[in-house]
Amino acid sequence: MRLIAACLTVLILLAHPSWAEEGMFPISDIGGLNLKGKGLSLTAEEIFNPDQTCLADGICKVNGCTGSFVSPKGLIITNHHCAYRAIQSLSTTSNDYLKDGFQAQSLENEIPAAGYTVRITESFEDISEQVLSAITSEMTFTERTKAIEQRQKELEQAAEQRNPGQRAEVAEMFAGKTYVLFLYTFIKDVRLVFAPPASVGNYGGEIDNWEWPRHTGDFSFLRAYVAPDGATVDYCEENGPYQPKRFIQVEPKGVDENDFVMLIGYPGRTSRHKTASFLEYEQNVRLPYIVQLYQWQIEQMQQSGKEDRSVMLKHSSRMKSLANVEKRSRGQLKGLVRKKIVATRKAAEAELQSFIQADPQRNDQYGRLLSEIDAVYGEMARNQYKLDIENIPSASRLMYFAFTLYDSAVERQKEDLQREAPYMDRNIDLTQRRLLLAVKDFHAPTDQIILKEMLTRVGMAGPKIEEISDDLPGIDTIASLYDKTSLGDPEFVESCFGKTPQELEAIQDPALDAIIKLYPVYMQLREEAKSREGKLDQLYGDLVTVKQAFQKQNFVPDANATLRLTYGSVKGYSPEDAVYKSPITTLGGAVAKATDSAPFILPESIIKKHTQQKFGRFSHPTLNDVPTCILYNTDTTGGNSGSPIINGSGKLVGVNFDRAFEATINDFAWNESYSRSIGVDIRYALWITGEVFGAQHLLREMGVE
Amino acid sequence: MRLIAACLTVLILLAHPSWAEEGMFPISDIGGLNLKGKGLSLTAEEIFNPDQTCLADGICKVNGCTGSFVSPKGLIITNHHCAYRAIQSLSTTSNDYLKDGFQAQSLENEIPAAGYTVRITESFEDISEQVLSAITSEMTFTERTKAIEQRQKELEQAAEQRNPGQRAEVAEMFAGKTYVLFLYTFIKDVRLVFAPPASVGNYGGEIDNWEWPRHTGDFSFLRAYVAPDGATVDYCEENGPYQPKRFIQVEPKGVDENDFVMLIGYPGRTSRHKTASFLEYEQNVRLPYIVQLYQWQIEQMQQSGKEDRSVMLKHSSRMKSLANVEKRSRGQLKGLVRKKIVATRKAAEAELQSFIQADPQRNDQYGRLLSEIDAVYGEMARNQYKLDIENIPSASRLMYFAFTLYDSAVERQKEDLQREAPYMDRNIDLTQRRLLLAVKDFHAPTDQIILKEMLTRVGMAGPKIEEISDDLPGIDTIASLYDKTSLGDPEFVESCFGKTPQELEAIQDPALDAIIKLYPVYMQLREEAKSREGKLDQLYGDLVTVKQAFQKQNFVPDANATLRLTYGSVKGYSPEDAVYKSPITTLGGAVAKATDSAPFILPESIIKKHTQQKFGRFSHPTLNDVPTCILYNTDTTGGNSGSPIINGSGKLVGVNFDRAFEATINDFAWNESYSRSIGVDIRYALWITGEVFGAQHLLREMGVE
Repeated sequence: MRLIAACLTVLILLAHPSWAEEGMFPISDIGGLNLKGKGLSLTAEEIFNPDQTCLADGICKVNGCTGSFVSPKGLIITNHHCAYRAIQSLSTTSNDYLKDGFQAQSLENEIPAAGYTVRITESFEDISEQVLSAITSEMTFTERTKAIEQRQKELEQAAEQRNPGQRAEVAEMFAGKTYVLFLYTFIKDVRLVFAPPASVGNYGGEIDNWEWPRHTGDFSFLRAYVAPDGATVDYCEENGPYQPKRFIQVEPKGVDENDFVMLIGYPGRTSRHKTASFLEYEQNVRLPYIVQLYQWQIEQMQQSGKEDRSVMLKHSSRMKSLANVEKRSRGQLKGLVRKKIVATRKAAEAELQSFIQADPQRNDQYGRLLSEIDAVYGEMARNQYKLDIENIPSASRLMYFAFTLYDSAVERQKEDLQREAPYMDRNIDLTQRRLLLAVKDFHAPTDQIILKEMLTRVGMAGPKIEEISDDLPGIDTIASLYDKTSLGDPEFVESCFGKTPQELEAIQDPALDAIIKLYPVYMQLREEAKSREGKLDQLYGDLVTVKQAFQKQNFVPDANATLRLTYGSVKGYSPEDAVYKSPITTLGGAVAKATDSAPFILPESIIKKHTQQKFGRFSHPTLNDVPTCILYNTDTTGGNSGSPIINGSGKLVGVNFDRAFEATINDFAWNESYSRSIGVDIRYALWITGEVFGAQHLLREMGVE
Repeated sequence: MRLIAACLTVLILLAHPSWAEEGMFPISDIGGLNLKGKGLSLTAEEIFNPDQTCLADGICKVNGCTGSFVSPKGLIITNHHCAYRAIQSLSTTSNDYLKDGFQAQSLENEIPAAGYTVRITESFEDISEQVLSAITSEMTFTERTKAIEQRQKELEQAAEQRNPGQRAEVAEMFAGKTYVLFLYTFIKDVRLVFAPPASVGNYGGEIDNWEWPRHTGDFSFLRAYVAPDGATVDYCEENGPYQPKRFIQVEPKGVDENDFVMLIGYPGRTSRHKTASFLEYEQNVRLPYIVQLYQWQIEQMQQSGKEDRSVMLKHSSRMKSLANVEKRSRGQLKGLVRKKIVATRKAAEAELQSFIQADPQRNDQYGRLLSEIDAVYGEMARNQYKLDIENIPSASRLMYFAFTLYDSAVERQKEDLQREAPYMDRNIDLTQRRLLLAVKDFHAPTDQIILKEMLTRVGMAGPKIEEISDDLPGIDTIASLYDKTSLGDPEFVESCFGKTPQELEAIQDPALDAIIKLYPVYMQLREEAKSREGKLDQLYGDLVTVKQAFQKQNFVPDANATLRLTYGSVKGYSPEDAVYKSPITTLGGAVAKATDSAPFILPESIIKKHTQQKFGRFSHPTLNDVPTCILYNTDTTGGNSGSPIINGSGKLVGVNFDRAFEATINDFAWNESYSRSIGVDIRYALWITGEVFGAQHLLREMGVE
């Protein structure tokens, strides 16, 4: 019967026009979309209006994710995986919130989520001219990058002085071409309110990650806090809940197949406007490198955590994030090959090149544009051995601690505006706080294996690294390096924060000394990156100009972690010949998957309530079961994690958390036939929160009785 | 549009009654199935009739597979993977039939497929009483097994004397209870006629193996040859094509969704009547062991074949068969867990136990039956370290050569009827021919790694193997053992065939010597196995009796490589929540999967013909594309490979070659919701053979113009 229902809805769906279109539209550009004709009853101004309260005021950026205010008291719903770092760092073997979940019975019991911040977009301003006036044609590419960076910082500083208490950030919309300054309310006291156990919030784990069908309850609740006077200050006991200008009303009736949905959020980064040569570099060099390195690292962490839950907890957050990128990269590799993305883009570029060459003046100006861009990626491919060197101070946490400390000390001797962004006065607190969190999770035996492997790989580059080989730590000295360093001790690391480079050198910590010796190598890599960026910025600026002339249309800028809207409908798809996937999964499906072993262990209470059909008011009217996850054809990427899924009346019907495997290549190319995003159905989130874990007070706070 | 079509047919299908039922029915037992009412226009007698020509005369056993005669001149269609061993052993790096395919333009060019035999079921007879009269209640379990084995051999010998030229074989239908003697025409000259390249016949390789959707052209053509006088003799140039009593007419129009289909073939082995404790042993001990060991072995072979196509060719057939079992075992493990098979069977046994205990007399007779069976598997689980010892002479090919030679020499000193079956006069030729084929594919460096690993594993059993540890080859002597042995030389191995044990001992070949030293250990394992078999035979005989009394119904016997029929219809399925798989794939789907790397390289000629829509007469009327594979809900297992898929008029519409991943647990439990088998659509086979590779003469021979 369910099959009949699914098929009938498919037939009905196919009679509908398809609403989705490519585009993570800047929130300021949605006026022309005519969403009214597509199922939305709100006007563009009701969604975003810098001068009045609007829907977008209810949406916030939570670190690299998105969240929604769902009550007048600053309650935020986002993903479990977005709160994961907080849940993990608050967990101990005796108080294991990852394993058991967390629930605060009242405000006093909500726990600070160290390192978490919340921002709300307040206004924006196109400042392209002011930014681009910083550069001259005489500059080298490195100088060009530095000039643009510095001008951006100046403009941010000036804006913050004009708007005390707000945070300013310049975003590059089109590389080398368009810049927009955003002003944010910036909240620094964020607390954990409710998290289901990982067996719900991460049900299916890495096996189901990036896959549809899905049965993951990937949601959690946080709360934003401010000082009694409303000021956005660091954690302080006297702080109280933040009152958002607007919150998103939760719709406990959820949504159904074919219904209009839109997502508002902060998608991180896409590469839709990049060349075929960039995609080839990704396909042949970077993605295979990432897959191989991350798989290996995850294996090491898994090995060392096998026997000891406390070691597993230390590694869990990092393993999760590496595994996420690893599998996404695999999906992208597969998609690039299967969907022949490079060939398609090459064909488009050949047409563009013909257009350019058809006009002598255009040919003079742009004739060599594509080949110059190609040359940059060609050089990167030839220098791929540098990837190992670049990755040392992230693969090895110890090297990351040492590098961040020393780099910070060097940069902090410069004028504020001259520094690398993480070390500027406005950012240094957060940089240090995150460093300390990482030190807390340091596990020397694993890290030692990883550093040894990285150095071995670097060594394999042979003659190419001859000039730096004396600067690398000797592989035979690593054991003693780990024996003698103090950088695994958070107190010691904290004591280094104010020190000058000379003072750090005087400590003679072997890990610091190793990085100090390598520091010139990294400074050269940084310069090379800035030079490359300067060159590509200029070339891509020209590319967008000539492409717009050719295609006679304006483009939607690539995602850049600024506020965007995307829309579509709840819709299944056919990922391959003879397979159709329908867009709503059920609790019954989750139960059918349950086994005795992770990641498919479902709490006994859920299985029991399912058997007893205790669905509360959250049963789907025709499926007669609680819907768990939904699938829709909007255009999303990383950073959309936690984005509200909003129905045609502006109400919240789910929380976005992933994409289908085929849609991992969304980052390179969107296509209605395979681009599908995945969200947790609000009915499942409410059922878990209220019916299963008894947090009825949160449902009441959201206005769900 | 295709989606609409698929969905409409689903809706139509759901209005149909479902025809499939569990059961690989013995061909003699199909009278009661009422297939006429289910879409078949033939009577049971037209399908099988020992006294007259019938459909079953057109079906044969090809080694462990099934085949169909498709012309009056002995042309056989079976799977590519069934002919794989022949194609591989005929391939060289310069004449690579695996890579390029093979096509004989005329009879003279058909090549002998060494080691291949064909048998056709002629008649059968229930001989249970004669077999069971060989045992007495005083016998030990080992004696019981030996008595039954010997009685079977006597009956086979007698039958062959009564029916000169035919082959007799006794099959156990219900363990310890029912035995049937089959008479076969036994053809020993089989030749390769046509094979597509592996890029078609094994398209998708191990990735797609056991998966639906599928786009594999897994078919090939062989031909049976006999002497001019019709006698079934070994290969000889004068031999000519065998004239089957009947051949199966090919239906170039194929079949469509929901159509009735039946399969006739030789399914190998199922375990539907075994206990939960057997399933637990499989789930906890044997299957995980197989998965781990085979994965490791495959990895070694892959490593050593990486750089050298000739080494890869040597290993390819064995890798393919290990990979097949490894993935099937993984599927079974997953299915056992997900479908909670053990718990279901335990519940059924608890009910049976209550039934037994409800009657005092029944309780006296059967009360301890289940616990006694459980005890046998419990002991096997406790002795799982023996698996490593048992597997030495199959994992290591050298040990397999040595063991077979020495075991043969020892057994050949006994009376023919006392020998282990492979060494009886009627089987020794084939045993030796297969041994020589294996020697031809010997690759010492890989084998050495494998033997070393096996010995290391055996060594890990520690104190448990103390009493045999002196008999094991020392790990440090292995290199010299491989240096000095002559068993990698086919001529040397052949020269050993007639030798006595003493003569083999006198050779002082280190590999032979190693096995000679271990031989008593293997003889003890053989005795233990016979004892266990005797005990289980007796217990399972009783179990079937009491279960039949409880359930008041007769059972279909487990598969045992005798001729069976299964029926159902072409039908999709929903393997999990929110996923529906439709039952016909297309050439377009195959092309969409094609990449530049194996196993998804499709010959350029196929891609081109697809682009040009050169489908000949083989296009599906509504899909407008050549159908590649079909899915149906019949009950099959290994051995059904190559079985004809027969439509309601008795015509051949496809060739069965696999099951869906969920259906790997068919061997333990059949279920209409997930048991699906996979066949190549005859239209794809004909299109590939005639349109792509131009073998129109074969199409003509099959009556397809």
